[in-house]
Amino acid sequence: MLVNGHAGDVVPALDRGLAYGDGLFETIRFVDGVAPLWPRHMERLRLSCARLLLPAPDAELLLAEAVQVVQEWVQAVVRITITRGLGERGYALPAVAHPHRVVAGFVAPALTADIYSQGVRLRVCDIRLAEQPRLAGMKHLNRLEQVLARAEWNDLAVADGLLCDTSGRVVSSTMANLFAVIDGGLVTPSLERCGVAGVARAEVLATQAVQVRDIALDELRHASELFLSSSVRGILPVQAVADTVYVPGPATRAMQRHWRALGFPMEQA
Amino acid sequence: MLVNGHAGDVVPALDRGLAYGDGLFETIRFVDGVAPLWPRHMERLRLSCARLLLPAPDAELLLAEAVQVVQEWVQAVVRITITRGLGERGYALPAVAHPHRVVAGFVAPALTADIYSQGVRLRVCDIRLAEQPRLAGMKHLNRLEQVLARAEWNDLAVADGLLCDTSGRVVSSTMANLFAVIDGGLVTPSLERCGVAGVARAEVLATQAVQVRDIALDELRHASELFLSSSVRGILPVQAVADTVYVPGPATRAMQRHWRALGFPMEQA
Repeated sequence: MLVNGHAGDVVPALDRGLAYGDGLFETIRFVDGVAPLWPRHMERLRLSCARLLLPAPDAELLLAEAVQVVQEWVQAVVRITITRGLGERGYALPAVAHPHRVVAGFVAPALTADIYSQGVRLRVCDIRLAEQPRLAGMKHLNRLEQVLARAEWNDLAVADGLLCDTSGRVVSSTMANLFAVIDGGLVTPSLERCGVAGVARAEVLATQAVQVRDIALDELRHASELFLSSSVRGILPVQAVADTVYVPGPATRAMQRHWRALGFPMEQA
Repeated sequence: MLVNGHAGDVVPALDRGLAYGDGLFETIRFVDGVAPLWPRHMERLRLSCARLLLPAPDAELLLAEAVQVVQEWVQAVVRITITRGLGERGYALPAVAHPHRVVAGFVAPALTADIYSQGVRLRVCDIRLAEQPRLAGMKHLNRLEQVLARAEWNDLAVADGLLCDTSGRVVSSTMANLFAVIDGGLVTPSLERCGVAGVARAEVLATQAVQVRDIALDELRHASELFLSSSVRGILPVQAVADTVYVPGPATRAMQRHWRALGFPMEQA
C-alpha cells in the first residue's frame, strides 16, 4: 500500500476523507499487471474531481503506483482513494487543497466458473437510495446507504441486492450496475439522481446499443435477461431476483465474450 | 489527540470510516473542562450507533478521553469520531466489529459579542439535501452535501447557508439547526427525511414549547425571529437571510439566557 507515494498504511486522523467522506475512490481490476479499463477509471476520476472541486491527480503517477502495489499477483484489484486531505475543523474547503492519495493492492476475489455460466441470485433491498443529483454518478466516499443495504442479508446464496430510489425506480445493485433486456432491447437505469456510474457500465455503453432510461422495478419481471456489470467482477448473469427467475441469454453472453476479449478471465474474476 | 485511547494522530488507511464514511461523530463544547450537554451527546451517539449496527462505545471511557484532550483550554471543542474500524474490502459488515475511536481536542472558535447581540447573515444554498430517512438525524460521516453547500460562497460577511430538501422545505443551516418564531409560536423543521438532529436543538426542545413540523422556505419571510442552535456556537440570532432582515427578539434572548445558565459564555463561544 502506498500513501502519497510512500509505503505506509495510515492516514492522518484529521483527513477530510475520514471527517466528512470528502473524497473519491476507484476499484480497478488488474490482470497480469495490466488494467484494461484504466483510461475509463481515470476519466471518471477526473470528472468527479472537477465536480467535487478537487485538483485532479496525475494519472501517470497513479498508474505507476498502482502497478507497484499489484506486486506479482496475476489477478489483482487496486483501490485508489483520493481525499481532500487536511483542513481546518469545519466544512469550508481549505484555501489550498493538498489532496491525499492511498493506492492499495488486493488479490482479486476468486469467483467460480459456475457464477459466470449460471449467474447470481439477488434480493431487493428495503433501503431506498436518496435522490441527490449533485452526487449522482460519482464513486465518492459517502457510502453509508450501500453499507446499510448490504447489512440487510446474511444468506450466502444471495450474492447482491438490488437498490431502488425513493420513487421505486431500480438503480443498481449494491456493488454493480444493472442491465436488462426488455422487449428485445438492452436497457440500463439512468443515474442522474443517484447511483454510481460504473466504469464497466461505461464500457458496455460504448460497445452496445443501450437505452439509458428510468426503469420501474416491476418492469424487471418482464425482462428476458438481466446482468450486472462490475469493474472488479466483470459481467455476471442474474439467475433470479427474489422469486423471479432469469436465464442468461445472448446479450449477456455477448458482453461476457467482449470482456474476455478485453483480457479479463471471466471464470476467475 | 487520542486514537483508541493512545496518543496518536493517524488511523489505518483501510478503516471503513475512510473507505465508506462508515461511522459517526460528535463535536462537543467544553468550558473549563466541563461539557454541559455531554449526556445529550452520548444519547445521540448511542441511538445512532444502534441505527448503524455499531456497538455503542463506553461513555465513561469517552468522557475520560475527552477531558484528557481538552488539556488546559478553558474554551474547547472535542470531536469524537467512531468508525466501524477495519474490514474486508466490500460493503458487508465485518463478522465482529472492532470500532475505532478518535478523540481530538481543539480551541473553541472565538466569536465576538456582536455576533450574539446582533446576529449572523445567512444565504440560501443552491444544493438541496437528499431525502434519506434511514440516515436522517444522525451526525454520520457522509457529509459531502454539507461540503458542497459550504463551498458555494466565500463572502466572509455570510456566516452560514440555509439548506432546503428536494421538496423546498427548509431543514437547517450547513452547521446548525434552525428555529423560527412564526405567528407567535416557536417552530423548527422536522428532521425525519434529512438533516442532523443537533444536541443543542434537543436542549431547546427540552426547554421550550416548540412545534416540530415541515416548514416551507417561503414561510421564513413571515417569521418575527430566527435563530440557529449549535453545540459549538450556542444560540446565534439570524439578522438576515439574503434580503430578508430579522431582529433578535424575546424567544432568541430567552434561549441565550438559558445557554448562559448552562455555563456557556455566549459572548465568546
